[in-house]
Amino acid sequence: MDTYAWGETLRLVVELAATAAFALSGIMEAARKRLDAVGVCVVGFIAAFGGGTLRDLLLDHRPFFWVQHVDVLWGVLALCLLAMFFLRHRHFELTEKAIQWPDALGLGLFAATGVHQALQQDLPLVVCVLMGVITGVFGGVLRDVVCNQIPSAFHDHRPYAVCAFAGGWLYVGLWQAQAPGWLALIGCVGLTAGLRGLALWRNWTLPTWRT
Amino acid sequence: MDTYAWGETLRLVVELAATAAFALSGIMEAARKRLDAVGVCVVGFIAAFGGGTLRDLLLDHRPFFWVQHVDVLWGVLALCLLAMFFLRHRHFELTEKAIQWPDALGLGLFAATGVHQALQQDLPLVVCVLMGVITGVFGGVLRDVVCNQIPSAFHDHRPYAVCAFAGGWLYVGLWQAQAPGWLALIGCVGLTAGLRGLALWRNWTLPTWRT
Amino acid sequence: MDTYAWGETLRLVVELAATAAFALSGIMEAARKRLDAVGVCVVGFIAAFGGGTLRDLLLDHRPFFWVQHVDVLWGVLALCLLAMFFLRHRHFELTEKAIQWPDALGLGLFAATGVHQALQQDLPLVVCVLMGVITGVFGGVLRDVVCNQIPSAFHDHRPYAVCAFAGGWLYVGLWQAQAPGWLALIGCVGLTAGLRGLALWRNWTLPTWRT
Repeated sequence: MDTYAWGETLRLVVELAATAAFALSGIMEAARKRLDAVGVCVVGFIAAFGGGTLRDLLLDHRPFFWVQHVDVLWGVLALCLLAMFFLRHRHFELTEKAIQWPDALGLGLFAATGVHQALQQDLPLVVCVLMGVITGVFGGVLRDVVCNQIPSAFHDHRPYAVCAFAGGWLYVGLWQAQAPGWLALIGCVGLTAGLRGLALWRNWTLPTWRT
Repeated sequence: MDTYAWGETLRLVVELAATAAFALSGIMEAARKRLDAVGVCVVGFIAAFGGGTLRDLLLDHRPFFWVQHVDVLWGVLALCLLAMFFLRHRHFELTEKAIQWPDALGLGLFAATGVHQALQQDLPLVVCVLMGVITGVFGGVLRDVVCNQIPSAFHDHRPYAVCAFAGGWLYVGLWQAQAPGWLALIGCVGLTAGLRGLALWRNWTLPTWRT
Repeated sequence: MDTYAWGETLRLVVELAATAAFALSGIMEAARKRLDAVGVCVVGFIAAFGGGTLRDLLLDHRPFFWVQHVDVLWGVLALCLLAMFFLRHRHFELTEKAIQWPDALGLGLFAATGVHQALQQDLPLVVCVLMGVITGVFGGVLRDVVCNQIPSAFHDHRPYAVCAFAGGWLYVGLWQAQAPGWLALIGCVGLTAGLRGLALWRNWTLPTWRT
């Protein structure tokens, strides 16, 4: 197996882990709101695929990621059903800890794919970065809207979207400097996940509205 | 009038009754939330046309159903205004009973049209079934999101989306077996509405999250 | 500078003022809900660009307004950050008064652009008017949905969407009568903003549901 194939495999592993982490965040939210089995599955799907689907709608890009990779769809469905059987409320705290890293890596990875796709349509750079942020963040936003609460990404005063924003600009910068694609990808994921990790570790908070 | 024309007429009658039932569910929800006349009309429209519109957005299909059939649009508007004049809170219980059957038939019919449209784009089968479910269910979901509550389809523990899911797979199966179109349609509507009726009659509930 | 250029400049001034007014309505709502800096910016963007983006999605029109005019995007971002620094809760009442007029003019202007764009696709007239109403109103609707409350446009019993509805029909009528474009535009903006102003001044209320 050469280096390129290794890179691709690594990317796939991160992508699957991140999708599972996003889906789990939806599943746990649905459980907290006491939704039924259908609700758990739908919210899991929305959390996992909502951001990418919204990006593809905005960029008029078809087919959607989950239409091209139907096995991921089945995988998320299996995850939802397994969670209904085995995940209990008392496991939530641990699960939330466990998904922090795949979630942060996924935020960076999804942001990078969003930026990349927009760059290929020759959109203005700021729009490309916004598409990256939307890809990474709006799965969680739609999850919270459907569960009838204010999106935690806008509310919990912890840097999340900003990390993807910074990572997105790095991707754009490296792309402009004609760096190889894998470098831009690693840079974006590294900066996003690194900032997110730092923010959680150092307890950084976003500025709030002064009354 | 030959058999085919009878079939078409029957289908049209079911479609109109179902659209009216969906709109009424939105109108009553809006009334419960004390929305004004504009809100009642908008929520009625969203409940009636939201699912099909979302499906068409996802499948990149234009024109929308309600753009092609503007008279349905006027009909729903008339229904909203009539309801403001004549429907009272004390009639709600009766109305809800009365719309259960057209609603169940509509769920099946809309699911079938969603599946059919996706099949014609050669999408993976599971995606076709999901499009059917979205067509039947997301009008109600958007109605509840706009009215600021958790969608009852995810919350009330009664089989609704699952019935459409089952009906959608039957449609796909009959299509794969090259059965005639009217048979697949009747099968899907029959199974969906039958399951829904059974679920209401026997008080079936969906599995819930065990704490 | 000839008359045409004057007209264009005037239109641009109204458009920018209206976009700022819409964004401010989102910013203040976000502040009331105690969102963080990211939330304030996102809700500001949604309020400013949500209606036009939804219209473009429905009409399958690309690129979006804010992709073509990236400076407006930067302007709204600057406005959000300035508001975080200088706008305080005690200024809200005054700001709300101050944005009533640009908001009403913007409602009319956005409705006119929505109607115009739909007319050019030869859609049925009632659909064109609805697209105008959606352009003017759904920025505020999405803003309220994300902030987890019932959209005030459906709830506060003050004519808002109806004004845009009336203005939209005037635009359609003048277009049908082959009046020059600037006349239809001024007519629509004038009627919409005039009705809105009258409604606020005379305290008109929409009919409510009689229990």
